[in-house]
Amino acid sequence: MTGEKKVTALDLEQLEKLSPETEAYFRKCEEKLGLIPNVLVAYAFDDRKLRAFTDFYNDLMLGESGLSKLEREMIAVAVSSSNHCYYCLTAHGASVRQLSGNPALGEQMVMNYRVAGIDDRQKAMLDFAVKLTETPDRIEEEDREALREAGFSDRDIWDIAATASFFNMSNRMAAATEMRPNDEYHAMAR
Amino acid sequence: MTGEKKVTALDLEQLEKLSPETEAYFRKCEEKLGLIPNVLVAYAFDDRKLRAFTDFYNDLMLGESGLSKLEREMIAVAVSSSNHCYYCLTAHGASVRQLSGNPALGEQMVMNYRVAGIDDRQKAMLDFAVKLTETPDRIEEEDREALREAGFSDRDIWDIAATASFFNMSNRMAAATEMRPNDEYHAMAR
Amino acid sequence: MTGEKKVTALDLEQLEKLSPETEAYFRKCEEKLGLIPNVLVAYAFDDRKLRAFTDFYNDLMLGESGLSKLEREMIAVAVSSSNHCYYCLTAHGASVRQLSGNPALGEQMVMNYRVAGIDDRQKAMLDFAVKLTETPDRIEEEDREALREAGFSDRDIWDIAATASFFNMSNRMAAATEMRPNDEYHAMAR
Amino acid sequence: MTGEKKVTALDLEQLEKLSPETEAYFRKCEEKLGLIPNVLVAYAFDDRKLRAFTDFYNDLMLGESGLSKLEREMIAVAVSSSNHCYYCLTAHGASVRQLSGNPALGEQMVMNYRVAGIDDRQKAMLDFAVKLTETPDRIEEEDREALREAGFSDRDIWDIAATASFFNMSNRMAAATEMRPNDEYHAMAR
Amino acid sequence: MTGEKKVTALDLEQLEKLSPETEAYFRKCEEKLGLIPNVLVAYAFDDRKLRAFTDFYNDLMLGESGLSKLEREMIAVAVSSSNHCYYCLTAHGASVRQLSGNPALGEQMVMNYRVAGIDDRQKAMLDFAVKLTETPDRIEEEDREALREAGFSDRDIWDIAATASFFNMSNRMAAATEMRPNDEYHAMAR
Amino acid sequence: MTGEKKVTALDLEQLEKLSPETEAYFRKCEEKLGLIPNVLVAYAFDDRKLRAFTDFYNDLMLGESGLSKLEREMIAVAVSSSNHCYYCLTAHGASVRQLSGNPALGEQMVMNYRVAGIDDRQKAMLDFAVKLTETPDRIEEEDREALREAGFSDRDIWDIAATASFFNMSNRMAAATEMRPNDEYHAMAR
Repeated sequence: MTGEKKVTALDLEQLEKLSPETEAYFRKCEEKLGLIPNVLVAYAFDDRKLRAFTDFYNDLMLGESGLSKLEREMIAVAVSSSNHCYYCLTAHGASVRQLSGNPALGEQMVMNYRVAGIDDRQKAMLDFAVKLTETPDRIEEEDREALREAGFSDRDIWDIAATASFFNMSNRMAAATEMRPNDEYHAMAR
Repeated sequence: MTGEKKVTALDLEQLEKLSPETEAYFRKCEEKLGLIPNVLVAYAFDDRKLRAFTDFYNDLMLGESGLSKLEREMIAVAVSSSNHCYYCLTAHGASVRQLSGNPALGEQMVMNYRVAGIDDRQKAMLDFAVKLTETPDRIEEEDREALREAGFSDRDIWDIAATASFFNMSNRMAAATEMRPNDEYHAMAR
Repeated sequence: MTGEKKVTALDLEQLEKLSPETEAYFRKCEEKLGLIPNVLVAYAFDDRKLRAFTDFYNDLMLGESGLSKLEREMIAVAVSSSNHCYYCLTAHGASVRQLSGNPALGEQMVMNYRVAGIDDRQKAMLDFAVKLTETPDRIEEEDREALREAGFSDRDIWDIAATASFFNMSNRMAAATEMRPNDEYHAMAR
Repeated sequence: MTGEKKVTALDLEQLEKLSPETEAYFRKCEEKLGLIPNVLVAYAFDDRKLRAFTDFYNDLMLGESGLSKLEREMIAVAVSSSNHCYYCLTAHGASVRQLSGNPALGEQMVMNYRVAGIDDRQKAMLDFAVKLTETPDRIEEEDREALREAGFSDRDIWDIAATASFFNMSNRMAAATEMRPNDEYHAMAR
Repeated sequence: MTGEKKVTALDLEQLEKLSPETEAYFRKCEEKLGLIPNVLVAYAFDDRKLRAFTDFYNDLMLGESGLSKLEREMIAVAVSSSNHCYYCLTAHGASVRQLSGNPALGEQMVMNYRVAGIDDRQKAMLDFAVKLTETPDRIEEEDREALREAGFSDRDIWDIAATASFFNMSNRMAAATEMRPNDEYHAMAR
Repeated sequence: MTGEKKVTALDLEQLEKLSPETEAYFRKCEEKLGLIPNVLVAYAFDDRKLRAFTDFYNDLMLGESGLSKLEREMIAVAVSSSNHCYYCLTAHGASVRQLSGNPALGEQMVMNYRVAGIDDRQKAMLDFAVKLTETPDRIEEEDREALREAGFSDRDIWDIAATASFFNMSNRMAAATEMRPNDEYHAMAR
């Protein structure tokens, strides 16, 4: 990884050579996304950690779910807004803009999802995700019931919870390490 | 999983049959821990999600690190105390009691780590973990610097951050689904 | 009190000799509880303060009331959980375990009373006690009305309020002085 | 107590006749203060509770202490300001005005003690009292140390803590019952 | 402005001579109010800033509106109570006392408007103003709807919002500069 | 204003005809900015309010000051981020991008100014502005002193305070009325 720019505030001993799987995965990222997300570069000092992270992430955000990919990205951004996470707001704000084709929607998720004029189902989804973010200890059965009334199955509730929870982890890794997003995100899909 | 007791408030369609790997893993848990942690039972409705979770978890909590296993469990409990997470406080409070041989230490982590009379290094570690939990957006270089001054390497800082961040995820999965800990934890290592 | 271990972080001039009433009271504690609660030892530097404290406490927690002793202890612990008070969580957590014969209930009060699966009446009682703890200025008539609807009389509401309020005092005395609970509590009624 | 105006929002069965001690105490209040503080009227439905309250209160606020009576009243008001307690701000605000002969000081304690231009010793005292009020779980040795550096003995720290703690109780009793202060306080010592 | 007492903690270069308009305005204040409010003295270092402030203020607080002048002052004080602003609580608390002829009402606005026993319309007005103060990002259509149901027109909602918003500005100017209210306010209309 | 799109959630009776000054001002906005900011359209139902707002705003943001226009816009956005104000983040985020020629800086102000890597002077300025926003009652002399040490004059402190305070007003007007920013802002200066 010689010559790689520093993507966090930590000085971690880098691998002399990425594993072939990581190399392949990074090349795939470059092909599909036009860049290697800096979060992956950050985890690349340890092959096992990188794999665990990407396995978890890819199942969550790209796997089968009753939630669309856009909806999962909307959760990611609304949660990251509550946590004021520069890395995730930048990277996943771009995803919302891209997947929705609606730049204003991306900005609304970054700034305050409550003004976005989304439908009741998505509003309930984000209300749950943000309450889970801010006061997890206050979640009670009536919160789950509100999701069911908005049309979500219990399996969907798992996915809403899992997405919101994951970004509460990622937001904190980014904050703790001052992870810097790739510059390219800023101009994407504006 | 017929006959398995319900471990969350969600009604998730269960697999007819656990995969051989999961069966094997669960048997290993029973041998080593005397129980299958309910969090694993909760994830077992989806084999891929269970695997992603356990891979991530095992690397984090059992893998190589400058932090001892006890220290990682202390972070887990101090974070879970801030989030008032019944599941994690119960399961990981037991781990702190076991690994330390000090029941009072387990209770102090559950109740308020600031009274535990731990050494400056561990105090700095928990101060960082709890600040990252409560106000992740306020972490700045001086917070990392405080850890370095307490004797932690940048690689240790990654592990402190990763452990605290992971339990911010797990606490929320438990809260969102009302995950119930195995009864056995309550009496362990008292 | 020569030889008495230090139970707070304060260096208070101790009485040369406890008053006969205090001596008698302490002997009664030892007989009935198997220990002299450290909070009493802490107040024993001043006989008048000790008496005022125990008079107040005994009327509140042991006197006649529409609330059972267990319910008053549940309030004590739920309030102390909100305030993260090590002393009171330890001592009164033990009381909940003892009076209920249900160790899990004690832990739930310590960790997050919202997951305890208690009945609507007790839930309403603890919701009021914790709201009174966290945002006393937001209590309005509808909060009292909710207690009445849950079956409490106005006299019961006084007792709920008095118990929650008292532990908001005691939690702070313990925090201010770093009061240390008797070790014996940890293993009681597990 | 027939004909007595209602001083709280609770409908409590009143004693047919106050005990002779209470009668005498109330007469003494009227002589010395020109009124019977409504908090005493509120407690008078139960003679034992009234006695416990007044014993505790009188020792705390009028007993021997390294803190002047004015200083104890300043703590009472600063704590009550943080809790937005109408009863205690009114009654004890009047006391600060009276004891200090400085109406502006009373208002500053009610509104924001930080602007009062008091000396460093009293500022440290109120900073401790308000921190203990707002985040009791964050009190650490350095907070006590700051009081010692400001010139307080450990015995004084006990009294600061006891006064702040007591008003955290009283503020909540007043909030829970919507206790109404005597009208006379408003015009006193302006 | 030579000889003028210092009304803030800032050392600002004062104008050698007030403009004739300002002089006239200050004389009018003295005639009508018996004093020149210190906030105007504070802004008087810059004539344009003073004019912008008074134009804005006078339209808001004295101009035509569906809200009475008293109601606007009540909003001012309830907002300032939430922000603990010594200057505005003192000056506008006096206004509530004067305009209402009810000293207790002024104190209730300063201390906790929720105990004031005002009618449902004014309660809704202050609930909105204080929510807008404390959690502006949480305002949603249902909050405006609650005002409409309490009898307010959309034009009234603008005025409620404008008054609450203005004092969120003024409270902060006063806090940032430690603005000191005229002593005369304390005794007014008691 | 017939045909004008609705820019807030309020139904306000519009003027039949804008005043000549307002017409002229709006034409000037269109020439210089390429749009009429919706905030002005929102205020245009009342000519006097519009004038008071623009006078105040123009002096503050465009008048003489020791702070550059960019610095004032940075304060506007950092404050609006704390308040999660969609309107102001959108409009003033665009200004930061334009004035700085640095799209990433605009995003950092929107998301979390603490990661922006700005110099110590600007960091101190934003720390003060955000503390004033979040806990105005905690501002003390040492906060002003920190600005002086960072190189600001007392006159600069006034301007920092005034800018932060103004956006605490504007953020709330936008939240209370659900003010919608012009779509054009989203794509500007990316």
